[in-house]
Formats: sequence, C-alpha cells, structure tokens
Amino acid sequence: MRAHFDVQLEAVSDTLVEMTSRVGLAMEQATMALLRADLGLAESVIRTDAWLDHQQIELEERALLLCAQQQPVATDLRFILTSMKIAAELERMGKLARHIAKLVRLRAPAQVVPASLHATIAEMAQIAGRLVSKAGTAIACRDADLAGELDPDDDAMDRLHEHLFDVILSPTWPYGVQTAVDVTLCGRFYERFADHAVTVSRRVIFLVTGERVPGDVG
Amino acid sequence: MRAHFDVQLEAVSDTLVEMTSRVGLAMEQATMALLRADLGLAESVIRTDAWLDHQQIELEERALLLCAQQQPVATDLRFILTSMKIAAELERMGKLARHIAKLVRLRAPAQVVPASLHATIAEMAQIAGRLVSKAGTAIACRDADLAGELDPDDDAMDRLHEHLFDVILSPTWPYGVQTAVDVTLCGRFYERFADHAVTVSRRVIFLVTGERVPGDVG
Repeated sequence: MRAHFDVQLEAVSDTLVEMTSRVGLAMEQATMALLRADLGLAESVIRTDAWLDHQQIELEERALLLCAQQQPVATDLRFILTSMKIAAELERMGKLARHIAKLVRLRAPAQVVPASLHATIAEMAQIAGRLVSKAGTAIACRDADLAGELDPDDDAMDRLHEHLFDVILSPTWPYGVQTAVDVTLCGRFYERFADHAVTVSRRVIFLVTGERVPGDVG
Repeated sequence: MRAHFDVQLEAVSDTLVEMTSRVGLAMEQATMALLRADLGLAESVIRTDAWLDHQQIELEERALLLCAQQQPVATDLRFILTSMKIAAELERMGKLARHIAKLVRLRAPAQVVPASLHATIAEMAQIAGRLVSKAGTAIACRDADLAGELDPDDDAMDRLHEHLFDVILSPTWPYGVQTAVDVTLCGRFYERFADHAVTVSRRVIFLVTGERVPGDVG
C-alpha cells in the first residue's frame, strides 16, 4: 500500500519536473521568436501552452484524489499540497512565455524589441532559463540547498529589468512610445517569470524542510 | 466532532471573505492615491499589504492542519484545497494594489497618470472593486451563480485596458515615454487584478459544484 502511494507521489514529482522543463523550453522559444521576429515559433509557443494548463488541472485532480484516498499526514501531505501550488506557479510561467509570443505575433513581421536591446533581453532569457532549470533540479532531487541558490540570479534579473527602464526613459530614446511600451511589457514578463521561479524554489524548501523562507519576490 | 470541524471550515471561509474585503479596500485606496498623488495613502497601502501575506500563510497552515487532523474527503477536501488557492489569488491581488501605490511613491509629488486619463482609471478601479466584492459575496454565500456573473465586468475591464493602449499609442500622445510606460504598467495592474478576481470566482464555482469552468483569464 505504502509502496503504491510512493509511486504515486513520485509520479507527481515527475510531472512537476516535466512542467519545469516545458516551461523553460517555452520561454527559450518565446525569446528566439522575439529576437528573430519568428511568427511560426511564436505560434508554436502559444499552442503548446495548453499542455501546461492541462497538466496543472490534472495535477490538482491527482492531489485531491491522493488526499481523499490516502489521507496523508505530515511530510506526504505537505508534499501534495505544495506540489499543487508549484504547478500553479509553473502554469503562470507558461502564460508569461505565451505573453511574449503574443507580442511577437502582434507586431510581426516587425521587431518588438530594437536590436540595441537584444543583448539585454538575451541575458534576461538566459537567467530565466537558469532559474527554471535550477527549480526543476531542486524539485527532482528535493534539494533545499539548491533551491536556496536562486537569489543571485533573481537579483541579476532585477538589475537587467532596471537597465531596460533606464534605456527606455533616457532622453535620447529614439524608438518612440509604442516600442517603449512593448519593451516595458517584455521586461515585466521576464522579471515576473524569475519571481515565479524563486517562489517555486521557496516552495521546494518548504516541501523539504517545513520551513518558510521569509521575504518578498515581487 | 463534526460540529467543531464545521466551525473551522466556516472560519476559513470568513478569513477569505475578510481578505477579499481588505484587497478591495487596498485597491480603492491605491486608486485614490494614484489620482490624487497622495503619498501618505500610498504608504498606507504598501504597509497594510503585509497583513494579506500573513493571512495567506496562516490560511495555508490551517489548511494543512485541517487535512492532517480531520482527513476530509469529497466536498470538505475540495473546499479546503480550493480555499488555499483562493487565498493565493487574493494575496497576489494585494500585491497589484501595492504595485500601484509604489508607482505613486516613485513619482510623487508628480502625477503618475495624466488628468485626461483619470476617468478611465477611475472606471477600471470601479470595475475592479465590483469584481472583488462579487467574489467576496460568492465566497460568503457559496454562490456559484453569482461567481459566474463576473465575465461582463472582466470584458469591460479588457476594453478599458485596450482604450488605454489606444490613447498611449496615438500619434498625438503628448506626455512622453515615461508617462506612457507608467500608464502601461498601471493598466496592466488593474487588468491582472480583474483576471485574478475572475479566477477566484471560477474557484468558487469549482468549490460549490465540483465543475471546472473552461477558458482562459490571462
């Protein structure tokens, strides 16, 4: 009985890990679409988001069933309830990748972000990828130490986000209001993506240790 | 035993209702601060956000305890797990009110939004207030019908959000890039607030009926 329950819990963990990997891929592809004004890739990101929605609902249903059938307590209960919340964060991260893809679709064949800011966006995307990948490994290994290591990347993301604002708001910004607005939204999507990854990692810490990490992620 | 459990469930519901009321107040005050460039009021919104954070964590702890001690099934289990998720949405709505207050603080004593857009913002705030208040009543009365009635207001919010973009991006926009960026962010905060309220109402429908409402809220 316990062995079967363990298999079910492991399957929940596997689903979360797969969701992090899909979310990471979605953000990577959304970024490629953004930097290349690639409409086809943008459409693909928008389409695959449904998979994440489905997984999130499916995982919630499984959590309800596991609670009802197994009446878990202590660590198992904390694991199941926290998994539900992690899935919700991951679903939201997928939406942010989709928001970027939708901006690409809205402006195609024009570029959303001017070439002079591509390096900054690429760096934000790289950090976003690293954060979600670390979060995935932390879930897979139930590694609270690794989960605690996301803050420096999140700080770097905040600095790049600030940098975007500095560039947009400089008196010599040559690209006009629409591009400023688009870059503002993109910047916020990457920054929120990072916040959610940090929240996921904090939930992993709670899941493993039962301790809550104080502080605010956005 | 059951009577005591019912009291505990009712207390969870009461906390959620109180959270919706506080979130509504926070958004109302953030809007007043925004339209009057009132730094004191903005600071007050920023400070009181901690209460929502605390309530959310406290409610999650209570949900864990109730699951562990009462081993709920069926409707009770669904109620407890859904309450946890509703609390997370409400906490996020509080953050959006705080974001608006922070913009006020950043630009004070200057106005964040030009006077010509105050009526639009006021209307968005009114819809936001109505949405969160309906969500609160739906929770209090476990009223799935009322919870299903939020979509027209959410659509109206989307239209106002679009209108903001039309104004910002019109060739005659006279207020420059910074104001365009600030209005973009404000617009997004109100629109996301509405999305979360709709998500809360859909969770109430799930809580009452066990049925999930299909479709996307952002």
